[in-house]
Amino acid sequence: MAYGVNRQILFASHPHGEPRPENFRYVESPIPEAAQGQVVLRNKYLSLDPYMRGRMSTAKSYAKGFEIGQPLGGGTVSVVVASKNPAFSQGDLVVAMGGWQDYALSDGNGLMRIDPTIAPITTALGVLGMPGMTAYTGLANIGEPKDGETLVVAAAAGPVGSTVGQIAKIKGCRVVGIAGESKLSYLTDELGFDAALDRRSPDLRTELAEACPMGVDVYFENVGGAVWDAVMPLLNDFARVPVCGLISLYNATEPPAGPDRLPQLMRLTLTKRLRIQGFIVWDFASQYADFQRDVSAWVRAGQIKYRETIVDGLEKAPETFAELLRGDTFGKAIIKIEE
Amino acid sequence: MAYGVNRQILFASHPHGEPRPENFRYVESPIPEAAQGQVVLRNKYLSLDPYMRGRMSTAKSYAKGFEIGQPLGGGTVSVVVASKNPAFSQGDLVVAMGGWQDYALSDGNGLMRIDPTIAPITTALGVLGMPGMTAYTGLANIGEPKDGETLVVAAAAGPVGSTVGQIAKIKGCRVVGIAGESKLSYLTDELGFDAALDRRSPDLRTELAEACPMGVDVYFENVGGAVWDAVMPLLNDFARVPVCGLISLYNATEPPAGPDRLPQLMRLTLTKRLRIQGFIVWDFASQYADFQRDVSAWVRAGQIKYRETIVDGLEKAPETFAELLRGDTFGKAIIKIEE
Repeated sequence: MAYGVNRQILFASHPHGEPRPENFRYVESPIPEAAQGQVVLRNKYLSLDPYMRGRMSTAKSYAKGFEIGQPLGGGTVSVVVASKNPAFSQGDLVVAMGGWQDYALSDGNGLMRIDPTIAPITTALGVLGMPGMTAYTGLANIGEPKDGETLVVAAAAGPVGSTVGQIAKIKGCRVVGIAGESKLSYLTDELGFDAALDRRSPDLRTELAEACPMGVDVYFENVGGAVWDAVMPLLNDFARVPVCGLISLYNATEPPAGPDRLPQLMRLTLTKRLRIQGFIVWDFASQYADFQRDVSAWVRAGQIKYRETIVDGLEKAPETFAELLRGDTFGKAIIKIEE
Repeated sequence: MAYGVNRQILFASHPHGEPRPENFRYVESPIPEAAQGQVVLRNKYLSLDPYMRGRMSTAKSYAKGFEIGQPLGGGTVSVVVASKNPAFSQGDLVVAMGGWQDYALSDGNGLMRIDPTIAPITTALGVLGMPGMTAYTGLANIGEPKDGETLVVAAAAGPVGSTVGQIAKIKGCRVVGIAGESKLSYLTDELGFDAALDRRSPDLRTELAEACPMGVDVYFENVGGAVWDAVMPLLNDFARVPVCGLISLYNATEPPAGPDRLPQLMRLTLTKRLRIQGFIVWDFASQYADFQRDVSAWVRAGQIKYRETIVDGLEKAPETFAELLRGDTFGKAIIKIEE
């Protein structure tokens, strides 16, 4: 399907709480043309990721905020349809920050070629892309899972959590995943997790304690909130907590009620000698080749499986993104813009 | 001065809040005799350290609690007065866990010989002992101060804080210390800190921000509370927070009022990619020789200075310990039991 226009979804206003339709605006613009040194990208697949909620906020964060009136940013699998850059030719398949639109311009910086013979090209947005590298580098540099240890991860059916859990299984860990009820059998039966718990269970604390009889050595933090509350009392001495996301907090509009547990967390950090460390994937950009080598091999060997939810149609991006934040997508959430 | 008895201060009851006289009991016991393999130690100097407050608590921590009815534990500089252990001879000077008493038995495990030619023997309880090693290993393994960075430390005139600050100066950092008002000129004029702030100032946040125009890269956490609150907004991306003590919380009896800032701390950890890590000195016991080599050399070269408050008389230990927790001692707090 080709369009004579560039369909775009613009960032219309900052959401208060969950993003709503009025925060987005659909427009049609002219297809951009390449100046010298540039390429025109036709976006085929758009990645939806929790970090985007942070970029919709006015709060300062590691990624700069989306600009009102501009297309929302996001990772894409794209094909070069016109090139005035000698490094790229028409037909090249790349991962780009193409954004929520049909077409994007690029000067070539940051474009990464995709080898479609390794795995389906959509994996460049998931297990073999940013989410997979988040899992890999967070474990390699901070989590450091060891044979016989226990690792807990939430959003465990998502592209980060499922990769975290499967790498930890390869490293010899007991792995406990937390996810929505409909995804639990996937974690245990298909991914080989040792236990899977319903994130909405009113007895999550008790169930987690039972699922972690030897305590928790690594908690890969990507959700925050009730899961972190349940994990904290179970942490073993010298436990590691890589923090790459806090999806449960992203739509929060009010500071939570007291008592103030910040001093308690510091006390726990001291007495148990915890290592709590935030990171984003690009902090470890120099490890990209290691990641590709190891995770590609594990995917080919069937040791790492993945799942995708591919929703057809750029116009579906806003509502699918809201579903993602609610935990209602399954596996990697991708918008198909064009086959 | 020799006694025919073993004067002991026993742990009488768990303090609620600040330790009070009734939590301690003075007794006189027979001088112990060495069984085969043991030595009798005559304690000369007793170290008072904030961690002891944790051992007076019923809460689980890294060190096991003091036992009611037993002498309180603590590091000592001691002399071997009788030996049935071939590794030690009468007259040997050692650092021991001799406790709050005149005499102690030891099987020799954990005794470390003191070389009195390097520095006064009391330094084995301070800059060349556990507090100095806490400073050294916390910086070497977690804080990792780099040339041009800014380091903040509180309890900055104490044996840990003053060593932390001076090592950071050697590493090329801007160093800001926080301490009681009477100690501030010592920090800047004698130790060479770049700035020193009054811990009781009502404008601590503003003053700290002004003293750290480039933000904070390392915060060596040994007090918690208001200082940590003032540091948090100033932390730079990739800041490191070694946590070795939380003295301001030790006497706390009530959980603090809300809002609950725990989620806020996790968010800060993520967005600024902080590394917050608890440790105790013995986690790095294998680095003892490195510590002795480096810090002894710095002390000899005058690059690290130290200060001691030596209070005469075992019976003064309880009240001096309470003063220590209030921040009213200056430098390393030591009880002289016998010259």
